[in-house]
Amino acid sequence: MIGVIRVFTTGDPEILNQHGRIITKHYGIQTMNKCIPDQPLGIFNDETEEIAIPKIVELGKELERNGSQVLVISCAADPGIKELRQAVAIPVIGAGSSAALAALAIGEPVGVLGISDSVPKVVENLLGDLMIGYARPEGVTNTTDLLTPSGREKGVQAARLLMEQGAKAIVFACTGFSTIGLADVLRKEINAVVIDPVEAEGMFASLFYKQAAKAVQN
Amino acid sequence: MIGVIRVFTTGDPEILNQHGRIITKHYGIQTMNKCIPDQPLGIFNDETEEIAIPKIVELGKELERNGSQVLVISCAADPGIKELRQAVAIPVIGAGSSAALAALAIGEPVGVLGISDSVPKVVENLLGDLMIGYARPEGVTNTTDLLTPSGREKGVQAARLLMEQGAKAIVFACTGFSTIGLADVLRKEINAVVIDPVEAEGMFASLFYKQAAKAVQN
Repeated sequence: MIGVIRVFTTGDPEILNQHGRIITKHYGIQTMNKCIPDQPLGIFNDETEEIAIPKIVELGKELERNGSQVLVISCAADPGIKELRQAVAIPVIGAGSSAALAALAIGEPVGVLGISDSVPKVVENLLGDLMIGYARPEGVTNTTDLLTPSGREKGVQAARLLMEQGAKAIVFACTGFSTIGLADVLRKEINAVVIDPVEAEGMFASLFYKQAAKAVQN
Repeated sequence: MIGVIRVFTTGDPEILNQHGRIITKHYGIQTMNKCIPDQPLGIFNDETEEIAIPKIVELGKELERNGSQVLVISCAADPGIKELRQAVAIPVIGAGSSAALAALAIGEPVGVLGISDSVPKVVENLLGDLMIGYARPEGVTNTTDLLTPSGREKGVQAARLLMEQGAKAIVFACTGFSTIGLADVLRKEINAVVIDPVEAEGMFASLFYKQAAKAVQN
């Protein structure tokens, strides 16, 4: 089982399980999804990240106790990844680093699509010179905006712009794009190669989940 | 279909198809395997790498013409990867970079297992501080040595040494270890988390193969 940490608060199991469902659909592995308490708006600046980190660590430890063999922090900023790796004995995968590493594997110029003012540091640092541009869907400042037809259309426009600037692939620097299924839209509508952070974290998690739990107990 | 480039010369289809079979077994995607001409000993120094690069590029172009949607250069040194990426319109994945990137995804200290004097540059550069040691199986200097029971046993010993030095996972810096199936031996015998370059290149290739061919033709 893969433990999926959502870094916002929801009481709706449908929303809670969205990323886990994507992982199970692509890699056939069951997931257990948990969200951090008391942060309905998630992480949106340094202060909210700082508050979230101990909650992420606690949640990771709980998921490990409950039988997860690999953990994913399902947020493109990889919040708390160092702290959680020190706290558990199983592999910890981050959505942002996973997407950036998948981009490095093809080694072609990529455009990054996000919703915040800047690219998450983990993504920017890993991509280095491979990142040729960053774009935000016009008027989208949070993941709720993405859920509207207009938000999706603005996402397509932003991706198209990045392709025109020379991107050979689009990297999502926000898992909200995964939630709305934008990757398949871009693949169909503008024939883009898309690196989706939830697909990417699921890929690495599935590589390690079978062998991991036994080995690290040594 | 995934095009698999073998960087040595063989007339034996059984040997030629070994890596493709591993990829198909793990990811369910068909492969077409081709080897470079006139280098039965493969690449073993700078000169033989230089001679091999134009052959790798030609082979990649041929595999693209024959319908491959993604190419893998199935050697841990990623020979010719820059040149081939410039020559074809489809994604090109290298075994060495794939293994190193998979190690970065778990972000834990790794030990590298190889057969040559030094770690392939692409692996060393990507791993950076994460690499805590490098080991060679005693007495093994080429992939043929690995095929003996003694070669396999020396491989287990070298991996065990790396784990004792603090490695949380073993990264193979030679696809010869993939050929002999050492990953499963280490997973069983010493409970090691193992990053196998052929499994890793297959993982990235399978992520890109479905969406790639259409998109890059734009």
